[in-house]
Amino acid sequence: MRRLARSTGLATLTLSIACAAAAQQELREVAADLFRPLPSTVPAVNDNPITPAKIDLGKALFFDPRMSASGVFSCNSCHNLATGGDDNMPVSIGHGWQKGPRNSPTVLNSVFNDAQFWDGRAADLAEQAKGPVQAGVEMANTPDNVIATLNSMPQYVEWFKASFPDEDDPVTFDNFAKAIEAYEATLITPAPFDAWLNGDDAALSDIEKTGLELFVDAGCASCHGGVNLGGEGYYPFGLVEKPGADVLPEGDKGRFAVTETAIDEYVFRAAPLRNIALTAPYFHSGAVWDLRTAVAVMAESQLGADLDEDEIDAITAFLGSLTGEMPEVVYPVLPPETASTPQPTGEVR
Amino acid sequence: MRRLARSTGLATLTLSIACAAAAQQELREVAADLFRPLPSTVPAVNDNPITPAKIDLGKALFFDPRMSASGVFSCNSCHNLATGGDDNMPVSIGHGWQKGPRNSPTVLNSVFNDAQFWDGRAADLAEQAKGPVQAGVEMANTPDNVIATLNSMPQYVEWFKASFPDEDDPVTFDNFAKAIEAYEATLITPAPFDAWLNGDDAALSDIEKTGLELFVDAGCASCHGGVNLGGEGYYPFGLVEKPGADVLPEGDKGRFAVTETAIDEYVFRAAPLRNIALTAPYFHSGAVWDLRTAVAVMAESQLGADLDEDEIDAITAFLGSLTGEMPEVVYPVLPPETASTPQPTGEVR
Repeated sequence: MRRLARSTGLATLTLSIACAAAAQQELREVAADLFRPLPSTVPAVNDNPITPAKIDLGKALFFDPRMSASGVFSCNSCHNLATGGDDNMPVSIGHGWQKGPRNSPTVLNSVFNDAQFWDGRAADLAEQAKGPVQAGVEMANTPDNVIATLNSMPQYVEWFKASFPDEDDPVTFDNFAKAIEAYEATLITPAPFDAWLNGDDAALSDIEKTGLELFVDAGCASCHGGVNLGGEGYYPFGLVEKPGADVLPEGDKGRFAVTETAIDEYVFRAAPLRNIALTAPYFHSGAVWDLRTAVAVMAESQLGADLDEDEIDAITAFLGSLTGEMPEVVYPVLPPETASTPQPTGEVR
Repeated sequence: MRRLARSTGLATLTLSIACAAAAQQELREVAADLFRPLPSTVPAVNDNPITPAKIDLGKALFFDPRMSASGVFSCNSCHNLATGGDDNMPVSIGHGWQKGPRNSPTVLNSVFNDAQFWDGRAADLAEQAKGPVQAGVEMANTPDNVIATLNSMPQYVEWFKASFPDEDDPVTFDNFAKAIEAYEATLITPAPFDAWLNGDDAALSDIEKTGLELFVDAGCASCHGGVNLGGEGYYPFGLVEKPGADVLPEGDKGRFAVTETAIDEYVFRAAPLRNIALTAPYFHSGAVWDLRTAVAVMAESQLGADLDEDEIDAITAFLGSLTGEMPEVVYPVLPPETASTPQPTGEVR
């Protein structure tokens, strides 16, 4: 009896493992159609060959607060690589203590987004990089002053020459942006979900796999797909039911400001979800601090789904598996100012 | 004739080299009485054993903007390790876009100063670290909110336990400051001048050696001596002749505010001069942008000396030999916030 029982138990166990393996393989096949794992190499970007010299220059520029008028803010201020590539505020504080209009998205893996900003108004990271440096509520600088600042420091001029060796006058605002884009393209964070997509069954826990299944079945993946689980398309916020004005303020009509087409009112780029557990608060308004709440808001407003607590837990657990390994960043030593470096000013124009 | 001439020439050359070597050795002996090279190891600090765990924790805290009320400023904002350990502004911009009262001094090598701040009001770096985090015009935080923030992130609690293993409740404001002190004690920048003090004749150029001689002969070293060429004593700014109110504003009476003794009016700690070429603008007022001008102001106001252009050039060149090798800093990955992390506020109380 005991022996028989044991033997039956073993058979059941073997069968159950076989079923689980088959189910997992099926889930992986579905997932492979919807998502893509991060590549193991730095992606190519349009018209901007990425070289080690350009990456280093871009890193210096990314961390240099002298790119702002006041000398207070660098790219890293609002896209802080120590805290998930964003700044953990509803909206960023910038020049003159002014608040920005929307939540700062993470710079991590942003090279894989189809376009940049919440409304996709910049086609790529180079175009994006030119925005905040000039925005009056952010870095409040001008291209001319950026170039004068860079030209005043011989080391920067050398770095631009090494990064753009075929150009006679490489210190330009375009190249400033291209160098930053090159650096940002290296900020890639492989996560447990990538390992699982790549075939490692043990990379996700049971609850994370359950969450992934729910994420797919409920329809989240329709908008949050691709390599970044988002960042690839534009959708009305409140497709099924508009959230309250605290989450979706009336004054910000999203992509409408870019296309001036009525159909784009309150349309936003689906947020890329990699490292989402690190980048509270959520949404373009930065109004929701808790990821579970954000999941519930999305389910209700976009899918008309009323998830129960266990389902929210599972999806939230799955989203946690998108938290990746941060790139190791050696903090740059920046060129010192010279007598001709424009002086910082905190003045609000 | 030719042979004789050659032989005489060689003898003269040999003699001249011997004289130069003797003169250099003499200069080095004088310098050895006035200055000390940086040690090759992290110095011990009072009541604060420095361990690798504590250094790592201190680094995280040093770079963490969530230590400020707004989430905008970290220690590194005003003591930026990318730009000479300071912020290159006359006075720092802090919470609510308010300006601080005095120029931010460099954090580099600051562990070797006898006391901290321009008026020496903090005995050591741990005491110093408690200042800006609470100052309304700087980080505008409270000890309670700092501790609540740290306790809300399990990774920080673990790091405090590892850093203070004998304490039951290690997450305290005192330990926060001690960890920062431990990290800052590692920020040491050996410079060409150290190599020369240590016996490497070639480490200083001729003009740098001439500048060193002038620095000693003119009397600069009376106040700017020791390992940091300053940071060891208090002296009236304007000992011989008061500089103008642009450089020495009347409202800031320096150490008088600490001691409330008339003799301490307009008395400041002699600025440590390591990396001075990287830390414009100069003086507690941050009013002078050019190092040559600062040298001339000092000579006139403190020594009554009217240096000529060549002398100013030479002293400035010598000061450049105090620019050291920056420590390699791997940018920290900070613990993510949780639901119980106090939210940032830019509100000015």
